[in-house]
Amino acid sequence: MTSALVSSCGERLDRLRRQPPLVQCITNYVAMNYAANVLLAAGASPAMVHAPEEAGEFAGLASAVTINIGTLSSRWLEGMHAAAKAANENGKPWVLDPVAHFATAFRRKAAAELLALKPTVIRGNASEIMALAGDASSGRGVDSGDSVERAEASALLLARQTDAVVAVTGAVDFVTDGQQSARIAGGSEWMPKVTAMGCALTGLVGAFVAIAPTTPWEATVSALACFKVAGTQTASQSAGPGSFAWRFIDVLAALNGDVLQAQAQVTPA
Amino acid sequence: MTSALVSSCGERLDRLRRQPPLVQCITNYVAMNYAANVLLAAGASPAMVHAPEEAGEFAGLASAVTINIGTLSSRWLEGMHAAAKAANENGKPWVLDPVAHFATAFRRKAAAELLALKPTVIRGNASEIMALAGDASSGRGVDSGDSVERAEASALLLARQTDAVVAVTGAVDFVTDGQQSARIAGGSEWMPKVTAMGCALTGLVGAFVAIAPTTPWEATVSALACFKVAGTQTASQSAGPGSFAWRFIDVLAALNGDVLQAQAQVTPA
Amino acid sequence: MTSALVSSCGERLDRLRRQPPLVQCITNYVAMNYAANVLLAAGASPAMVHAPEEAGEFAGLASAVTINIGTLSSRWLEGMHAAAKAANENGKPWVLDPVAHFATAFRRKAAAELLALKPTVIRGNASEIMALAGDASSGRGVDSGDSVERAEASALLLARQTDAVVAVTGAVDFVTDGQQSARIAGGSEWMPKVTAMGCALTGLVGAFVAIAPTTPWEATVSALACFKVAGTQTASQSAGPGSFAWRFIDVLAALNGDVLQAQAQVTPA
Repeated sequence: MTSALVSSCGERLDRLRRQPPLVQCITNYVAMNYAANVLLAAGASPAMVHAPEEAGEFAGLASAVTINIGTLSSRWLEGMHAAAKAANENGKPWVLDPVAHFATAFRRKAAAELLALKPTVIRGNASEIMALAGDASSGRGVDSGDSVERAEASALLLARQTDAVVAVTGAVDFVTDGQQSARIAGGSEWMPKVTAMGCALTGLVGAFVAIAPTTPWEATVSALACFKVAGTQTASQSAGPGSFAWRFIDVLAALNGDVLQAQAQVTPA
Repeated sequence: MTSALVSSCGERLDRLRRQPPLVQCITNYVAMNYAANVLLAAGASPAMVHAPEEAGEFAGLASAVTINIGTLSSRWLEGMHAAAKAANENGKPWVLDPVAHFATAFRRKAAAELLALKPTVIRGNASEIMALAGDASSGRGVDSGDSVERAEASALLLARQTDAVVAVTGAVDFVTDGQQSARIAGGSEWMPKVTAMGCALTGLVGAFVAIAPTTPWEATVSALACFKVAGTQTASQSAGPGSFAWRFIDVLAALNGDVLQAQAQVTPA
Repeated sequence: MTSALVSSCGERLDRLRRQPPLVQCITNYVAMNYAANVLLAAGASPAMVHAPEEAGEFAGLASAVTINIGTLSSRWLEGMHAAAKAANENGKPWVLDPVAHFATAFRRKAAAELLALKPTVIRGNASEIMALAGDASSGRGVDSGDSVERAEASALLLARQTDAVVAVTGAVDFVTDGQQSARIAGGSEWMPKVTAMGCALTGLVGAFVAIAPTTPWEATVSALACFKVAGTQTASQSAGPGSFAWRFIDVLAALNGDVLQAQAQVTPA
């Protein structure tokens, strides 16, 4: 299974480059610029469109939608609802990134409402996924206080509860649709020190799930493998988080399907 | 004509550095940081002020205003109206960047309202300018689906309809005031792969049109030539869009009028 | 006094890295990404949380709050009030950055209201601090039109009026609590050419004042010394503001207490 899966990672990246998907990213103020550059480097066409006045209409045009609650407000939440509903109505996949959803009552309610709108994929750090599955977590602010390993059972539970693919990202990523699961190794210790890295990855998952034919689980594995391979390559050329941030963009822009296939560290779980 | 025009590009950059204009940039969340750094590198003083509570008052203080609808909302549109009106009342030039204005009904209406407030300069990609002139375009999201060449007739038409200078930017830029036209070559294929490049250029046009004595057409040609020369220089030192983005800032900060004059590729059209 | 003070700078940075404070940053759209990366590089855990729906609740969880009015709106001002009040009620320090507060009536009123909520530290450029103390300044937009030296008397006055530590940053920084004062030298001429540098420094002050045991004055001196030392080191490796911006992050991430102590240029004033 794994070799076929890894081979499909490379093919999917090449397909993405040949037919750039239009990805509507509703993300936070911190991440917008970096996420857009990551999507452009991967070959996708990002569009940051979130106002309630147009978010739903635009979702009808987009190939996929991603929703990240990092810098949430009531007005933006309206736009998120409109985009998620329109994605559902138009049969477009959408990805939820429930940033620090456990931190405040406002955020908990927002995450619950978005979850009820049936995301295709949920991507978060370990603390976020554990809390979303109803488990106790050590999360504080936007950084994870738990290991991915500790969150695997929560991810399985959440996937079965929601019918979504659940991706827990960290030192070694874990992705499950409740039936099939995989772990993706690689990356760099600098990645959690670069702000918006996870938010940008959510955007990339959106780009990959927009590429047919695929299952959301395979597409998510591919996006995560692409990110990890680029991270590993970048780490060897970087002197710190500042250089890591921009070299990652160069590396991602130069990555092709063959290299991705050769270097991806995906194992069944 | 051309050699005098090119010589005036260099003089205008030197003048901008000696007397930094205060440029009020109402731009999108993706572009704000990069646009501010581009304006600082060119020698201008950018100020990102957009709230309806103060946008009009601030426009009275600024040397020029730029308005970009990339991440639009109703509230921000109020601020844009206030700033454009105040610019007009105070005899200050203002620049419109109608990002993806054809994508949704909300955006189309916003662009039409702003156009009615008589911008001094309109800068967009080919799809945006074609759609603004009422022509069919292949635009989708924020990236152009058309070549600059195809948009030249639309630009001429739009300039005559609106009395604005119209700049279509892309592989070779085209600038017209309806009477005089020029093409500006140079730049790099990495530029459309760096998000907010075009939005930052809109800010730079604002800085150049603030420098008297000049005509808006000459000032726009100068700003575009400055951007293209910096882009060409940067391309030879960059390994991808990540390194391009920051090296462009270094190159622009080091550019002077003599080099700009020597390297600008401006031809009458 | 100075050598003990300088030695405490280094200890404080090491302590920050061992026990990362959660810093709630309410800052402007231009600065968010860069400020978050600066805080991560220094070892802190930044969280950009500003909506009135949750800003107060989150301040109860955070170790410190920073409030910057760079891109102000009425709605955000509500969030700022909620966060400042919650910080006060929970005995958490908070830092005010009154960006261009003299430029418009809306901004002047906002700054006055926030000042009445008793910030622990006020950090601004010379023009901002002079205007806040009621003196005439040459400020225009967000860039300072005055030297730090000219603002020292205003800083002393403001510190005594408000019981806050007042930091004026520029070529040589000046910090006073109305009784003790210090100057911090170092840095680079590129720093004012990189947008959001000052806003990021405000975030760093928040991280340092969160580290007990300390006085807000000592903590502010430490944060400024840390920034200056990193700036000096970065300048020698940079070719312009573009390279300065990311190398500063690498340098800050690599800085440790011993080096900070050895290189800090702090003198009593």
